Amino acid sequence: MKSEKISDAVVRRLPVYLRFLNQLSQREVPTVSSQELGQKLALNPAQIRKDLAYFGDFGRKGIGYDVSYLIEKIRQILNLDQPINVALVGAGNLGQALSNYNAYLKDNMKIVSIFDAFPSKIGTQINNITVQPIEELKETVKANNIRIGIITVPDTEAQRVADVLVEAGIEAILNFAPTILKVPPEIRIHGADFTTDLLSLAYYLEGKEHLSDES
Amino acid sequence: MKSEKISDAVVRRLPVYLRFLNQLSQREVPTVSSQELGQKLALNPAQIRKDLAYFGDFGRKGIGYDVSYLIEKIRQILNLDQPINVALVGAGNLGQALSNYNAYLKDNMKIVSIFDAFPSKIGTQINNITVQPIEELKETVKANNIRIGIITVPDTEAQRVADVLVEAGIEAILNFAPTILKVPPEIRIHGADFTTDLLSLAYYLEGKEHLSDES
Repeated sequence: MKSEKISDAVVRRLPVYLRFLNQLSQREVPTVSSQELGQKLALNPAQIRKDLAYFGDFGRKGIGYDVSYLIEKIRQILNLDQPINVALVGAGNLGQALSNYNAYLKDNMKIVSIFDAFPSKIGTQINNITVQPIEELKETVKANNIRIGIITVPDTEAQRVADVLVEAGIEAILNFAPTILKVPPEIRIHGADFTTDLLSLAYYLEGKEHLSDES
Repeated sequence: MKSEKISDAVVRRLPVYLRFLNQLSQREVPTVSSQELGQKLALNPAQIRKDLAYFGDFGRKGIGYDVSYLIEKIRQILNLDQPINVALVGAGNLGQALSNYNAYLKDNMKIVSIFDAFPSKIGTQINNITVQPIEELKETVKANNIRIGIITVPDTEAQRVADVLVEAGIEAILNFAPTILKVPPEIRIHGADFTTDLLSLAYYLEGKEHLSDES
């Protein structure tokens, strides 16, 4: 094991590798080279080899990676060799859309509870999960060993929800609200704000003229 | 202007700066320091200064950044000093949720058209936009000068939709389908797959034991 800190960009590619390896495994493909991975995933093969080498010496020269073995190792690296329960807060359109993705998650991770503050949402069913009042969050998180929280409430409510999640003992948060949230340093928080993604794409449009001076 | 290639991580922070600067502007705050920005945005002030310095010498020692001026410059850098039209393909839960975010986008970028392949969706209204059949995409993209496409269809349909968007002349794509899409190199594509975000968060959970050897 290399002890250097592994960048988030590397960590974020691991689920991409895992998803494709799972597809190979379903088709009973025994081995795969970094070239094949790179071609399918639109990534540089050298980058893939480097990413995986952070975690161990998984490849064999001239053979490539053993698909089953690499799946097992990436699942271990990502902590997915244990069931990980996820709570979603905000049962609006976005929350409902995300809960549909349980089917894609597989790999031991699952949205098990959905919370909302609106009385009209409480008790409704979303993908077989009954929406609970946010007042039950703390108790439910502890009872169901929920470790990750997803925030899909409006930006004006997001900080309050983050505080509740942290108080309940959540270890990591995925925040879809377009606002920066303050959480203690031991809590891992990722922003998944779609407007940031979209606005940053505009940078790459043609016909741009960079600021050329500081007049 | 510095001619070095600017990393995507830097570009992705610009909309975050812009959003907060817009808030300051609404409150008629004239100037802001990198320390204040850093505190509010949970970022390192040195990182913020470095990010902005890629594009010009915007700050003044002891004063900080002029809010209005920095807003104008970031909008120019992101090409947001012109209207940018966006098409969304996939009028399911996720597409509907994302179209709600037009209110957050402001800044001259707007989802103007929504497409779907399902007859039951065609003609329905989502946030005052009439869902059109995908067969009309090419014509509509050209007629409305649409430059960015958002893909919110199931993974099995995503490549076909990407091909249609590229053929229609779209310059950039935000892909929410959990699959890797092949597009020509001149097309900028960002993956916004939520499952990747969520699975990568598991890496940071406590109690992990890294692979320690290669037995």
